[in-house]
Amino acid sequence: MVTIMTSRPIQRALLSVSDKTGIVEFAQALQQRGVQILSTGGTARLLREHEVTVTDVSEHTGQAEIMDGRVKTLHPKIHGGILGRRGTDDGVMQEQDIAPIDMVVVNLYPFASTVADPNCSHQDAVENIDIGGPTMVRAAAKNHQDVTIVVNANDYDRVIAEMDTQANSLSFDTRLDLAVRAFEHTAQYDGMIANHFGARLPQQESPFPRTFNAQFEKKQDLRYGENSHQQAAFYVSAQPQEASVATSVQLQGKALSFNNIADTDAALECVKSFSAPACVIVKHANPCGVAVGESCLDAYDRAFKTDPTSAFGGIIAFNRELDEATAKAIIERQFVEVIIAPSVSEAAQQIVASKANVRLLSAGQWPAQRTPSLDFKRVNGGLLVQDNDLGSITEDELRVVSKVQPTAAQIDDLLFCWKVAKFVKSNAIVYAKDGMTIGVGAGQMSRVYSAKIAGIKAADEGLEVAGSVMASDAFFPFRDGIDAAAEAGIKAIIQPGGSIRDDEIIQAADEHGIAMLFTGMRHFRH
Amino acid sequence: MVTIMTSRPIQRALLSVSDKTGIVEFAQALQQRGVQILSTGGTARLLREHEVTVTDVSEHTGQAEIMDGRVKTLHPKIHGGILGRRGTDDGVMQEQDIAPIDMVVVNLYPFASTVADPNCSHQDAVENIDIGGPTMVRAAAKNHQDVTIVVNANDYDRVIAEMDTQANSLSFDTRLDLAVRAFEHTAQYDGMIANHFGARLPQQESPFPRTFNAQFEKKQDLRYGENSHQQAAFYVSAQPQEASVATSVQLQGKALSFNNIADTDAALECVKSFSAPACVIVKHANPCGVAVGESCLDAYDRAFKTDPTSAFGGIIAFNRELDEATAKAIIERQFVEVIIAPSVSEAAQQIVASKANVRLLSAGQWPAQRTPSLDFKRVNGGLLVQDNDLGSITEDELRVVSKVQPTAAQIDDLLFCWKVAKFVKSNAIVYAKDGMTIGVGAGQMSRVYSAKIAGIKAADEGLEVAGSVMASDAFFPFRDGIDAAAEAGIKAIIQPGGSIRDDEIIQAADEHGIAMLFTGMRHFRH
Repeated sequence: MVTIMTSRPIQRALLSVSDKTGIVEFAQALQQRGVQILSTGGTARLLREHEVTVTDVSEHTGQAEIMDGRVKTLHPKIHGGILGRRGTDDGVMQEQDIAPIDMVVVNLYPFASTVADPNCSHQDAVENIDIGGPTMVRAAAKNHQDVTIVVNANDYDRVIAEMDTQANSLSFDTRLDLAVRAFEHTAQYDGMIANHFGARLPQQESPFPRTFNAQFEKKQDLRYGENSHQQAAFYVSAQPQEASVATSVQLQGKALSFNNIADTDAALECVKSFSAPACVIVKHANPCGVAVGESCLDAYDRAFKTDPTSAFGGIIAFNRELDEATAKAIIERQFVEVIIAPSVSEAAQQIVASKANVRLLSAGQWPAQRTPSLDFKRVNGGLLVQDNDLGSITEDELRVVSKVQPTAAQIDDLLFCWKVAKFVKSNAIVYAKDGMTIGVGAGQMSRVYSAKIAGIKAADEGLEVAGSVMASDAFFPFRDGIDAAAEAGIKAIIQPGGSIRDDEIIQAADEHGIAMLFTGMRHFRH
Repeated sequence: MVTIMTSRPIQRALLSVSDKTGIVEFAQALQQRGVQILSTGGTARLLREHEVTVTDVSEHTGQAEIMDGRVKTLHPKIHGGILGRRGTDDGVMQEQDIAPIDMVVVNLYPFASTVADPNCSHQDAVENIDIGGPTMVRAAAKNHQDVTIVVNANDYDRVIAEMDTQANSLSFDTRLDLAVRAFEHTAQYDGMIANHFGARLPQQESPFPRTFNAQFEKKQDLRYGENSHQQAAFYVSAQPQEASVATSVQLQGKALSFNNIADTDAALECVKSFSAPACVIVKHANPCGVAVGESCLDAYDRAFKTDPTSAFGGIIAFNRELDEATAKAIIERQFVEVIIAPSVSEAAQQIVASKANVRLLSAGQWPAQRTPSLDFKRVNGGLLVQDNDLGSITEDELRVVSKVQPTAAQIDDLLFCWKVAKFVKSNAIVYAKDGMTIGVGAGQMSRVYSAKIAGIKAADEGLEVAGSVMASDAFFPFRDGIDAAAEAGIKAIIQPGGSIRDDEIIQAADEHGIAMLFTGMRHFRH
């Protein structure tokens, strides 16, 4: 194991940052503690404007800045000063007049921001590849035995605070911790560069880079994974794109489990589909009850009715602030694992507080226009990467293929039902009426069984299927699914179409007087 | 867009490699083409032994090697030579006697290999962090407008070949391509360092690093993702751990789709569970028929019988070489999307050739002892990371909790059934008899519906449930599942146990004269 020891007092620091947040105050604090400051370019100018005494790197090395600064810090006086092993290399450092550099404060301009500009040319992107910065970061991080590397403005305060308790030196643990942050920073930086240029090689016609580099930050260790013999952790994006389970703040309750997080994601992403107040209840990765309503309470009451058995111990998501009345209804009626909403009223929070174990999450408000992102499916030895399924359809895009035309109310229900089917594991069949799910048939290897299950579940809960509409996440391969739907009393069906037997399927709908609409878009979800 | 142009002829190259494969031949070829070679340390020694004329970097810079080589290449003469912009910086280069370096050939010792040694100390790991190497790689890659970077021995031949057709220069496309490889190399390198030290910070008690860095290499672009409006690609690990869908070789057939790959993974990973000849048929991410048998053919015949409807268009996996008889039976009997086996006999391959669209994959042989790996579940804005579920149980670990003891044949079937249930989406109920699935109830939000579905499907296929055994992937919350099983004629049940109502559940088994065994291990799979 590693011996815990403090470094020698910090006497010389090199500061050269892209993110200037707090750098003046930090430099002033270092100077007050007798630290000599080396710097370059914009950082040096800013510090001088604030009366920090700064030695230019070029003055320190005796090498004039050349090539518009491309090689300014790539010099033995800098890197010998950073990499020299105190105690081992002191002789050669003295002999070659290499002064030890005890702290390096460098951060890199986020490459992703440069290339996010659609006008960013190849040349602009290339010029934004920093060479000197990452080298100093990596060198200082390697030599964390003797040197402190700081890549994040958030760490300035703790560094000064620790220096003050330890006669201007830092503990080994702090130096190692900061060194790990440094390699995290450079790994992400080069990953972004490889992803950017790798997706733009002249010989490839693909939006996917040749290597896929991903970096996530740990949000929490989990007690275990999908099962108790699996260890697990939850990671989030450093720059989350929109409000999600990853951005949510837990207001109360037990720690989230692996399955809680996965199910909360499914519930929240589904409820985002609706503009009216909506409630989605998820169990085992599938919506078991979904409804829109006049209010959150109305939506919850109706979502619960679809399948009260499965709703027990479920995850409940809303697309409106959780209010007192809804919180009360949930807490009085059922055992619930997680409640998530864009926000939670104070009164609602007080109600939920009576059940200390219930996990209550405030997700933040998502934008109406959803943000594209990547979905992954892990396979042994590899990773399937795809665009997240943000496909949606409007009433105008629906194509009525049956003789019978749907009513306006049926169209509302069909669009509702279609949005739910997108979040049910394939093969998915959903029955709905009046903005409420009547039966959910999930995860079957043949479509007709999903239809059967939706019907069985509706009957078991005493819900009347007759007069409902039905959504199918993919086309019907045979007419048997339509015949079964007719028998159950289904009056309108929404499905992608595209089967080689579409004619037979449409004929079946016509025979039964069912309205049938094609979306032209499939929503498999496995 | 970028103009296609060749660089100036390569006149000076710096070679310093960890992987010495082919470096002597490459250096000789460069020398024959009049290229001056700079080198360091072990690479320089090896080249001199093979009569390549080499200039030491220290001689070139005039800076003696110090600090055991920690800073040998971090010098303006090296980095000015690499980073100087031809045409722009020529004046300063001449003035400061900086000779242009036209090619950099550097690769990094795989950090993962160093730290894979359980005896690798913190100090050993630190010493293996290369600073000079990545800096030269990154500098040359940045300046791909003028400089060629080679990080992989596999690229030596094409570099020489292209030099020979272009008067010792390389095209811009080649230089950019090699530059992307360079950033892929450094991103992976720093990712490995961050993962290693990030999981070993003194203050954390977690096997999961603070940031999670993953790099995958693209195996193929896919026509589309889970649905046609989603773009997708298939990535694989650079160092695959064991035979899998990622290592498999496609012998014939249409290109694999996103869903093909996901389902093939499920089928292959499931069939790996069995030691006797086994067949797994997967549809929509779930096994719809599994059997062990005397031979592949026998196993396939029986697996097919479980659910011929779902098997249509399925993915079929074997744990033995695909032989002629089995190939013939499949091709004559059913439409199949993918067949995968550790190997495929020549005769079997000829049989399958009659159906040109069928995707036939040879996976390679996996080891009896499975390799641990990480599983991911994507959520919006984040990533759940967990150990792959490699949990398994042996007969000795089963605990009989009922009054009735299972027979030896029932134990065999229970263990078979349990292995299948692990690969069925939760809630999972599997009925089996004589090493063959009788009914598979998948993906339901309440357990009792999974049991119902297994029974309905068995009846629909004319299979007799009476006398079968049953597996449940998690405990029974209520006795209703046991009562339903008894009614169907189930004689023995395997399940994890652990419900607060275990007493009631066991009592139900005893009332029905059912043998019940607890595994103590759950297998949720969502």
